Amino acid sequence: MKIGFIGLGNMGAPMARNLLKAGHAVRVFDLDAQAVQALVDAGAQAAGSPKAAATDAECVMTMLPAAAHVRSVLSADDGVLAGIAKGVTIIDSSTIDPASVKAFAELAARHGNSFVDAPVSGGTGGAAAGTLTFMVGGSASAYEEVKPVLAAMGKNIVHCGDTGTGQVAKICNNLVLGITMAGVAEAMSLGEALGIDAKVLGGIINTSTGRCWSSDTYNPMPGVIDSAPSTRGYTGGFGTDLMLKDLGLATDAARFAHQPVYLGALAQQLYQTMSSKGAGRLDFSAVIKLYRDDGRDASNSNGGGA
Amino acid sequence: MKIGFIGLGNMGAPMARNLLKAGHAVRVFDLDAQAVQALVDAGAQAAGSPKAAATDAECVMTMLPAAAHVRSVLSADDGVLAGIAKGVTIIDSSTIDPASVKAFAELAARHGNSFVDAPVSGGTGGAAAGTLTFMVGGSASAYEEVKPVLAAMGKNIVHCGDTGTGQVAKICNNLVLGITMAGVAEAMSLGEALGIDAKVLGGIINTSTGRCWSSDTYNPMPGVIDSAPSTRGYTGGFGTDLMLKDLGLATDAARFAHQPVYLGALAQQLYQTMSSKGAGRLDFSAVIKLYRDDGRDASNSNGGGA
Amino acid sequence: MKIGFIGLGNMGAPMARNLLKAGHAVRVFDLDAQAVQALVDAGAQAAGSPKAAATDAECVMTMLPAAAHVRSVLSADDGVLAGIAKGVTIIDSSTIDPASVKAFAELAARHGNSFVDAPVSGGTGGAAAGTLTFMVGGSASAYEEVKPVLAAMGKNIVHCGDTGTGQVAKICNNLVLGITMAGVAEAMSLGEALGIDAKVLGGIINTSTGRCWSSDTYNPMPGVIDSAPSTRGYTGGFGTDLMLKDLGLATDAARFAHQPVYLGALAQQLYQTMSSKGAGRLDFSAVIKLYRDDGRDASNSNGGGA
Amino acid sequence: MKIGFIGLGNMGAPMARNLLKAGHAVRVFDLDAQAVQALVDAGAQAAGSPKAAATDAECVMTMLPAAAHVRSVLSADDGVLAGIAKGVTIIDSSTIDPASVKAFAELAARHGNSFVDAPVSGGTGGAAAGTLTFMVGGSASAYEEVKPVLAAMGKNIVHCGDTGTGQVAKICNNLVLGITMAGVAEAMSLGEALGIDAKVLGGIINTSTGRCWSSDTYNPMPGVIDSAPSTRGYTGGFGTDLMLKDLGLATDAARFAHQPVYLGALAQQLYQTMSSKGAGRLDFSAVIKLYRDDGRDASNSNGGGA
Repeated sequence: MKIGFIGLGNMGAPMARNLLKAGHAVRVFDLDAQAVQALVDAGAQAAGSPKAAATDAECVMTMLPAAAHVRSVLSADDGVLAGIAKGVTIIDSSTIDPASVKAFAELAARHGNSFVDAPVSGGTGGAAAGTLTFMVGGSASAYEEVKPVLAAMGKNIVHCGDTGTGQVAKICNNLVLGITMAGVAEAMSLGEALGIDAKVLGGIINTSTGRCWSSDTYNPMPGVIDSAPSTRGYTGGFGTDLMLKDLGLATDAARFAHQPVYLGALAQQLYQTMSSKGAGRLDFSAVIKLYRDDGRDASNSNGGGA
Repeated sequence: MKIGFIGLGNMGAPMARNLLKAGHAVRVFDLDAQAVQALVDAGAQAAGSPKAAATDAECVMTMLPAAAHVRSVLSADDGVLAGIAKGVTIIDSSTIDPASVKAFAELAARHGNSFVDAPVSGGTGGAAAGTLTFMVGGSASAYEEVKPVLAAMGKNIVHCGDTGTGQVAKICNNLVLGITMAGVAEAMSLGEALGIDAKVLGGIINTSTGRCWSSDTYNPMPGVIDSAPSTRGYTGGFGTDLMLKDLGLATDAARFAHQPVYLGALAQQLYQTMSSKGAGRLDFSAVIKLYRDDGRDASNSNGGGA
Repeated sequence: MKIGFIGLGNMGAPMARNLLKAGHAVRVFDLDAQAVQALVDAGAQAAGSPKAAATDAECVMTMLPAAAHVRSVLSADDGVLAGIAKGVTIIDSSTIDPASVKAFAELAARHGNSFVDAPVSGGTGGAAAGTLTFMVGGSASAYEEVKPVLAAMGKNIVHCGDTGTGQVAKICNNLVLGITMAGVAEAMSLGEALGIDAKVLGGIINTSTGRCWSSDTYNPMPGVIDSAPSTRGYTGGFGTDLMLKDLGLATDAARFAHQPVYLGALAQQLYQTMSSKGAGRLDFSAVIKLYRDDGRDASNSNGGGA
Repeated sequence: MKIGFIGLGNMGAPMARNLLKAGHAVRVFDLDAQAVQALVDAGAQAAGSPKAAATDAECVMTMLPAAAHVRSVLSADDGVLAGIAKGVTIIDSSTIDPASVKAFAELAARHGNSFVDAPVSGGTGGAAAGTLTFMVGGSASAYEEVKPVLAAMGKNIVHCGDTGTGQVAKICNNLVLGITMAGVAEAMSLGEALGIDAKVLGGIINTSTGRCWSSDTYNPMPGVIDSAPSTRGYTGGFGTDLMLKDLGLATDAARFAHQPVYLGALAQQLYQTMSSKGAGRLDFSAVIKLYRDDGRDASNSNGGGA
């Protein structure tokens, strides 16, 4: 299949590689010439603009930082919609707000194209290994159409419902994630202050009603789970600023839906505090530093920027 | 073994029955004569006071609502310490604050007795089935001693560390639980408002990083998990007022430890709001009513008191 | 002076009238023809577009609901910038985010115009009476230039600093306001539950360290302050949805500044809860209903929409 | 009048001095012999026990750290009730929970004595100057009786209602205070981050709807109010740990009344964070350090303990 691919960042680059590996012809565009060259070296064709990437494509994928980029990539003079043939489907794997998805889908529909939201979970590791989860929003037929393309990059391709529900699924999952991680951080820190061994406490929570991914897989207290970022100085993993972005999407979506999110809004402020202390690039489980150390350590580990 | 058992409420009564079933001789005391009679009918002996229950016992168990009751049962003129022989261990399965446990252990030590905290999880169902989890705080030798007794009532007997750490484990687990449940309630309600199917959203969260007991076993949105209280009108299960009690213990313990618990304190206010609306006896997952319905439904289901 | 005035809503209309009363020649534009006609009846000239309103004007004022409207009114084909003469100052009294102000100021500068932010406080009453407070962001010379114009509509014209600081001042003040009102609501409700007379409690707070505008002028408990909206069923005053808009601006600005606003984010959720219950048009002091009544009363008073 | 006075701490000592200055005969007791000697030097008589201080007294005053101390001073074998004559009124100026006040009043009533709660505001400065505010809970006749005694130590003697309402008034006022201070800290810090001059912002808030004691008298941003603790390194003033104690009383009272206090509970966690960083003895307005500095500065100024 001829696929146009726009956005070759930490996630997009390995995803495009997996499309190549699956035998697709991939034409790539990114503002970063080095990122483009690396894909060309792997067998992709370089495109000079989103429009060029979309021309003659049988499918177009975008993987971009925010809704403003998607809008521009779609509708600029040299954008996707200027080049794409009628009837070709656009798959956007960026994490953006559901309202923008609907607006982009309407825009695409006016050009005779389907627009499917397919945000991912699984991180850069999953992108490289081709084991991402895709949360797909779109009609049943659009889902069936994009499924084989996405299968080259992920192992779970879940149909969430109509256009926009892929983003809703991702936002709601990450809302739970942001809250449970901070909640586990509070409880593990309280337990430490009250004198219980962290491994023992982790073991009890993980076999009891407090059980959750944030505790049994990604416990924020160093030493409880060997493979968790907490045990390697909060490096790698899912950055605090990325969690902050997703909680921002969640609280914004809640605002427009007139839906309260008490704990989500408070958790957002906790990650914001970490970010303001220069720890935005640490794994988000570093939020436990707000409870355990005094603030002077918040940016101590590597990864903590300016 | 001769066991004195004090406190025959919803939890204590089935626990004492399981001790009888295991072949122990159980002497029981409760202020409620009917509760005592029911145990006598099952083979127990009635005692006229905690002191009488403790006299000649080889082990004494207490299962009471709060620290004040434990204090009184121990140290009143006709209390346990007035009757118990030196060297006999007292096991307290009440859920109380760790500081009180330490005070009671010192009091018992002055009388030549060990005091072991062994709060439970598993609810009235687990108490009846003999499948409770006991979180045990005490010396390694005290743990070895009480383990066979507790094994008649539970299937997981976990040694948490020194005196008081059983309570710490329970409080910290339930702190996570109270936060994750309210977090899942926010996310499921937000998803509903944004138009995603609840079962689909639950399915995604339960196989992703938002995965937690509050979602995959006890999801607060009706219809997602068939066996959850949410699917039967929030009846049975773990009452809101009990969650409120445990979050109260957690935030109090945090206060004395000078340890912040932001999300825990906020979650406490959410359950408090439910309780103030008359929903204190509904399962704690009914907290989702704060997000989905207007308040008029908070006390609609049975179980909602005055 | 010849003044172009765009935006004749609840605030803009009386402001434009006061400009007429002060002897200015005012050319008005609004999408609502009735609103335009009412001003024409009062002596204004009607303009067919923002461009027409700006043509030949010596000063242009805008008073619009949100940044998107300001952007469109400025830069559309028939917008202000298409008609305004070089060197003429644009005063925007809308309440919008400081980042948009800066973008608009740059846009205006490229056309040779100054753009001054001058959001107001004082409500529709102050707009009618000409007693508004204007918080002005811009250079010292721009401030001196706009001051006489604004003086026809307000009695306090405060220079806050450079472009955008007028919005910052308004957002920060209303952040304090939203928090103190909810805080007073909590305390007055707690006092009521604990048995103290509301007037006595109000009197003590108002002469003590809890003293604040939300208590001594606008107390949310009915009967404490005779002139407050709480004493007339929470009608009139400053609507919950307007407070929600301003807290949204504050938390958004905080997000972009990587600055935590714990209490602001939580207060926002409280007003959001009111809005989700249909009480968005009640005065914002109705937030006390979350604490005093069960939710069934949240939309009882008039003003509470669907 | 012969007055027994128990509790000669930072507040009690200057209060007792003012009773002496007013011509009363004061018999004092404190566990700290130095504190007693200082009062004896000023003209008081030393008593060897609370009982001795109460014997022959026409009025007994207590000023103690917490309810447990009041209970012990009243009911110990050598306590006040063992020495006091029937009909003599006990005035307790400690800040304690209203439920304890009611219990103490019942205890006193059984001995034929009235117990009046009269907590104060005004700090050590007000205690020395004799300008405290007393919030009095008790019958109208008890109020009339204690008023002349209290007038020697304060200038506002306010009758709040029945027994316990003095404490309710104090707790509710300080709940508002704790919230508004943290709210002003958020807003001033946000304003600073967004580039407005702090003095300008303070001036706007103080003449607008955000006006409050925490801003116009005690602004937490250094340099805004010359006489505020923020301008002298957060020394003196009202300590963070004292605010924490009062917010603890407020949230506990709310728990027992089944009354939510969202912002109060969150504010409590903010002050708790300060205390856990070693800043418990700084003025409570130092909470702004959570927003402005990274944590390393929280305990920088003098006053930051352990």
